[in-house]
Amino acid sequence: MASTYGTAFRVTTWGESHGPALGAVVDGCPALLAIDEALIQRDLDRRRVGQSRVTSPRNEADRVQILSGVYEGYTTGAPISLISYNKDVDSSKYENLRDVFRPGHADYTYWAKYGHRDHRGGGRSSARETWGRVAAGAIARALLATAGIDVYAYTVQIGTIVATKFDRSVIEENMVRAADLDAAEAMIAAIDRIKEEKDSLGGIVEVRADNVPPGLGEPTAEKLDALIGQAMLSIPAVKGVEIGHGFRAVAMRGSDHNDAFFVDESGRVRTRTNQAGGMLGGISTGEPIIARIAIKPTSSVSREQETVDRSLQPRRILVEGRHDPCVVPRAVAVVEAMMCLVLGDLYLRNRMSRAYWE
Amino acid sequence: MASTYGTAFRVTTWGESHGPALGAVVDGCPALLAIDEALIQRDLDRRRVGQSRVTSPRNEADRVQILSGVYEGYTTGAPISLISYNKDVDSSKYENLRDVFRPGHADYTYWAKYGHRDHRGGGRSSARETWGRVAAGAIARALLATAGIDVYAYTVQIGTIVATKFDRSVIEENMVRAADLDAAEAMIAAIDRIKEEKDSLGGIVEVRADNVPPGLGEPTAEKLDALIGQAMLSIPAVKGVEIGHGFRAVAMRGSDHNDAFFVDESGRVRTRTNQAGGMLGGISTGEPIIARIAIKPTSSVSREQETVDRSLQPRRILVEGRHDPCVVPRAVAVVEAMMCLVLGDLYLRNRMSRAYWE
Amino acid sequence: MASTYGTAFRVTTWGESHGPALGAVVDGCPALLAIDEALIQRDLDRRRVGQSRVTSPRNEADRVQILSGVYEGYTTGAPISLISYNKDVDSSKYENLRDVFRPGHADYTYWAKYGHRDHRGGGRSSARETWGRVAAGAIARALLATAGIDVYAYTVQIGTIVATKFDRSVIEENMVRAADLDAAEAMIAAIDRIKEEKDSLGGIVEVRADNVPPGLGEPTAEKLDALIGQAMLSIPAVKGVEIGHGFRAVAMRGSDHNDAFFVDESGRVRTRTNQAGGMLGGISTGEPIIARIAIKPTSSVSREQETVDRSLQPRRILVEGRHDPCVVPRAVAVVEAMMCLVLGDLYLRNRMSRAYWE
Amino acid sequence: MASTYGTAFRVTTWGESHGPALGAVVDGCPALLAIDEALIQRDLDRRRVGQSRVTSPRNEADRVQILSGVYEGYTTGAPISLISYNKDVDSSKYENLRDVFRPGHADYTYWAKYGHRDHRGGGRSSARETWGRVAAGAIARALLATAGIDVYAYTVQIGTIVATKFDRSVIEENMVRAADLDAAEAMIAAIDRIKEEKDSLGGIVEVRADNVPPGLGEPTAEKLDALIGQAMLSIPAVKGVEIGHGFRAVAMRGSDHNDAFFVDESGRVRTRTNQAGGMLGGISTGEPIIARIAIKPTSSVSREQETVDRSLQPRRILVEGRHDPCVVPRAVAVVEAMMCLVLGDLYLRNRMSRAYWE
Repeated sequence: MASTYGTAFRVTTWGESHGPALGAVVDGCPALLAIDEALIQRDLDRRRVGQSRVTSPRNEADRVQILSGVYEGYTTGAPISLISYNKDVDSSKYENLRDVFRPGHADYTYWAKYGHRDHRGGGRSSARETWGRVAAGAIARALLATAGIDVYAYTVQIGTIVATKFDRSVIEENMVRAADLDAAEAMIAAIDRIKEEKDSLGGIVEVRADNVPPGLGEPTAEKLDALIGQAMLSIPAVKGVEIGHGFRAVAMRGSDHNDAFFVDESGRVRTRTNQAGGMLGGISTGEPIIARIAIKPTSSVSREQETVDRSLQPRRILVEGRHDPCVVPRAVAVVEAMMCLVLGDLYLRNRMSRAYWE
Repeated sequence: MASTYGTAFRVTTWGESHGPALGAVVDGCPALLAIDEALIQRDLDRRRVGQSRVTSPRNEADRVQILSGVYEGYTTGAPISLISYNKDVDSSKYENLRDVFRPGHADYTYWAKYGHRDHRGGGRSSARETWGRVAAGAIARALLATAGIDVYAYTVQIGTIVATKFDRSVIEENMVRAADLDAAEAMIAAIDRIKEEKDSLGGIVEVRADNVPPGLGEPTAEKLDALIGQAMLSIPAVKGVEIGHGFRAVAMRGSDHNDAFFVDESGRVRTRTNQAGGMLGGISTGEPIIARIAIKPTSSVSREQETVDRSLQPRRILVEGRHDPCVVPRAVAVVEAMMCLVLGDLYLRNRMSRAYWE
Repeated sequence: MASTYGTAFRVTTWGESHGPALGAVVDGCPALLAIDEALIQRDLDRRRVGQSRVTSPRNEADRVQILSGVYEGYTTGAPISLISYNKDVDSSKYENLRDVFRPGHADYTYWAKYGHRDHRGGGRSSARETWGRVAAGAIARALLATAGIDVYAYTVQIGTIVATKFDRSVIEENMVRAADLDAAEAMIAAIDRIKEEKDSLGGIVEVRADNVPPGLGEPTAEKLDALIGQAMLSIPAVKGVEIGHGFRAVAMRGSDHNDAFFVDESGRVRTRTNQAGGMLGGISTGEPIIARIAIKPTSSVSREQETVDRSLQPRRILVEGRHDPCVVPRAVAVVEAMMCLVLGDLYLRNRMSRAYWE
Repeated sequence: MASTYGTAFRVTTWGESHGPALGAVVDGCPALLAIDEALIQRDLDRRRVGQSRVTSPRNEADRVQILSGVYEGYTTGAPISLISYNKDVDSSKYENLRDVFRPGHADYTYWAKYGHRDHRGGGRSSARETWGRVAAGAIARALLATAGIDVYAYTVQIGTIVATKFDRSVIEENMVRAADLDAAEAMIAAIDRIKEEKDSLGGIVEVRADNVPPGLGEPTAEKLDALIGQAMLSIPAVKGVEIGHGFRAVAMRGSDHNDAFFVDESGRVRTRTNQAGGMLGGISTGEPIIARIAIKPTSSVSREQETVDRSLQPRRILVEGRHDPCVVPRAVAVVEAMMCLVLGDLYLRNRMSRAYWE
């Protein structure tokens, strides 16, 4: 449904960029999961603006409050309402955008669809909507942790700079969240440069989930791949998703692409390679889930652009406001959250698939 | 839901590769749409096996029967039941696969999830399930045609052969459904060669929808991009999806990637370029929808492979049965169908978004 | 959704009264449930026409075929497609009803909603649609049986004749399915009489579910009561539903209506009385579920009635065709099926409510 | 879904009786509907506690704030978040109920289902959850008003006192919301008396919707009747629902129960009587929708009762706290809200049913 993610673990977000508050309601979370605001805040802090010089300077603490569904530290099975009041709202920069459509943004399409919109800061189409996803994702992450499932993401490309090494321990040690410190340095330099040029950059985020048991995902319409695809392409600025070898699989032969099965020393069915990215027929194999997400360069650039206004008159605009020169470092937290939501949902649903009376 | 595509225009498929029949139920199609079996068969014939030497030699007419929901040539608003009986079923080749897991297939994951499976011809995980999608897609296509929306797909890459020209009129004139006859010839040669080598190839399908009005797609969870992502990644063998410039957008600057707005001579808001692929903020802009879908090389290869069986013993297998050396040519019809289902669904839902009392 | 019952155990029905076939697709049934056609046919035979002189003389074997989702006697987790071809279709009696709206029937409302309808035998609005519900209900019943849950219904009133005794063993021994043989005799006589008078009777069916564990049902929107209400009021001709003491509770005092809790000798929490009908706060208590369903007198009466036609001209009609003078005896099977669908669905969903990591 | 009402016009409620706040998120409301807090507050004031001596003395202003989805007085099509902070919370009276199950309440069933619960004031199972329904219902009412649809409810029975007259103008003029001032007086006296006796009463609410166009409701699973049944039986304390003549239809003959069609002077198809309560085959006829809802006597009675605690020990309890001796007067607002939600949802969905290209 329009503003709801998931079928069993359902998250409905609400709120506008410059409205009084943002929020999410999580419905379907099982009872007796240990949750508190600090646990959620940890993930939110990785998404928030103003966290480093490569992000937007808007200063929002993004402080979460739990308004329902948790009692004495544990979920009760009731809907969990999460809220954060907007603090640093400056709509003055948007006054001149009331009637004009910013290129690359949803201004025109919302107006075409609804005939009325809150233009301030992008309103509902702002990436601030992802606050609710990350808050809810933290709860899904806690749910997955009860089964040992571990979800993490990192930047593998910014502009044309590509990471070539992988060291998980450094991801949170650098402003762009790369798993490669040398590449990170170059990426930061590239962002600094593009910022000076009043332009923007895109990039690629890779996300992994380790210790996913086999069996997650539903055949046909709700394959694990399909739900990851929906989840990732629902993130603002995402333009592509690939699973495992993805687009690179196209040029391979079947005999090279197939991952051979074997039984490891612990008696578990494994594959020699994991080119499939941890899923076959839409269902997890037990190997790590791996996906890559393409993020376009931020649409807000401080350069004059050609456009039109609501009266269908040509206009030239200079978009002001406070923007990220590159959203990739913050998108890492959103990609992780969406993967947590997909897996949390499928994890619960999988409880229903197999007979337990056998 | 697991076996259902869509929210307003809902398609539920059923059936196994070697079961008695395959089918789909379409619920939510408006009344008074002109539909007959010939209209549906036209699309099914482009998907069926045995249509050319580059597809599997299994011979299925895939003849559709309409069992409900259409009366005297028009839909009634009731569920439309579509069925096709399997004719050319030969399960003998699968007897030795009862207990063994084919690499690259869903044998192991279904067994891990359900503890019981119909192994014959891949059972439910077979691409024969897409029969129902294509049959239902033909009805969605008819629905979209009432608004002038036109959906078509074509092969742009097979193995390492890339199409470089575009001529829509030749798509159905060549066995691989490329819009470039020269590339088609090379693609066919590549498939012939890989077939002899008992191996398989993948490829890329591009899909377009023309004349889509602005306003289709729902913000946040059900962005047009997101629903295309889910739809395409729910197709067997698909490993990646990109919208517009997709992964290529990553290396661009924002000022280059943004599509400038202008008003054309007919008074319609247009964009100078269409690097966004026809959508902004998850909602159609009115420009053509463009997406590209990566398809892995067919997992069934007639070469010996390493695997395990249900008793967790190592096995070496040679997969027999009748397979496509490359599914891309037939996948073109499935990709089109899925795009029709996504747009048909959003088209109906969009009737509810905007006030009509204004 | 329009033609789908349930969230986890989902049943989509299709088919028209005089179309080629009727069917249902069951999606979400766990794997490894033992199912065969005989098990389903048993329930269908209790619903079918022509089973006794108090039902319609239309002769339909209503023979079920399983087309998918069951392999070697067990469900596979894939959608289960059930079909029955219509045999004894005689549309000649309906030719004069093509343009005229029968009072008490859905002819006018379907026409007003859709602008086009299959008028033959009531088309989609015919109670023949319940074939699919009963077929699917038999599978849900088998699912519930794995947990010892036992669902059964019986007639407690026909016209003004009220049953006053309860002997489960006689329910299938009399044509009206009362649990009281003396009342049954009077009910049959009343139906015989009304048939001669070319008129019809209504009645009340009571349904019980024994051995339902505590915990089934979701708070707020999907209370067990609410889903029973939806299920029962979705049956053609049903005009009322009450849970436990229902409308009789209105005139009681709280101190009399509350069921006192105690712990029985086996250590189970029980209630001294069960005036609540087995649920509190929308969740099962462990006591028997009890509901009563009011069924209106059949709308098809062979008497001249005042009505209008599609040209909005007054008409007087005499409805011919083959009808039940009282649908209550057959409705017993449908009521049972709907209760099985509700409980089967909630039973699966309840697997997700409580932490199992505690 | 568990905490969500509706398919097109979707309302998700959250919050506990003694938690910090209560709320609802409305998703799917079309853009350009004029909405403000005063409009919503009007309905909330009719539901709130402390409004008269026949309701609970808990004093909650139940003040609504709109946090999203409305901009400059009009809906934007984005989710509408509604919130009210709890003010007059006194949990001290509930401390002794932490481990004990109140008869007639959901204490035991929530504990059995979830293993953990917020016991204060009934937590999530409290009727305070209906705050969100009434707030959202006010928005649905505004939506329906654009089409002239008018929904209202009134008390027709309290305990054994039955209203026998109907004067809409007096409904809001008496504390019990009867449409019969004489009966109202007797009803109020009965409540005063039962309060002194530390006991409680139930009653019946009748709800009507006028000017509903023909065509609302979906055949089979989501009949208008079925959705009303679900909506009403999802209200705390409701034990029965009947449509039109309901249980009284049981003893009628078909020839008496059928409503004859005619065409009125304005050219509209009407029925001579409206015993069907405004719907046939699950779809509205254009006649007024009429339903009656049975409400049990309040479970909270200030008398000693037999029960058990979490350790399965027998206990005798005296339930303190502030309660309604009869919830019927406040339930009138909730019943109206649920009818508005059902009709609002079906009204939007009906936009998709019929071809508009015909």
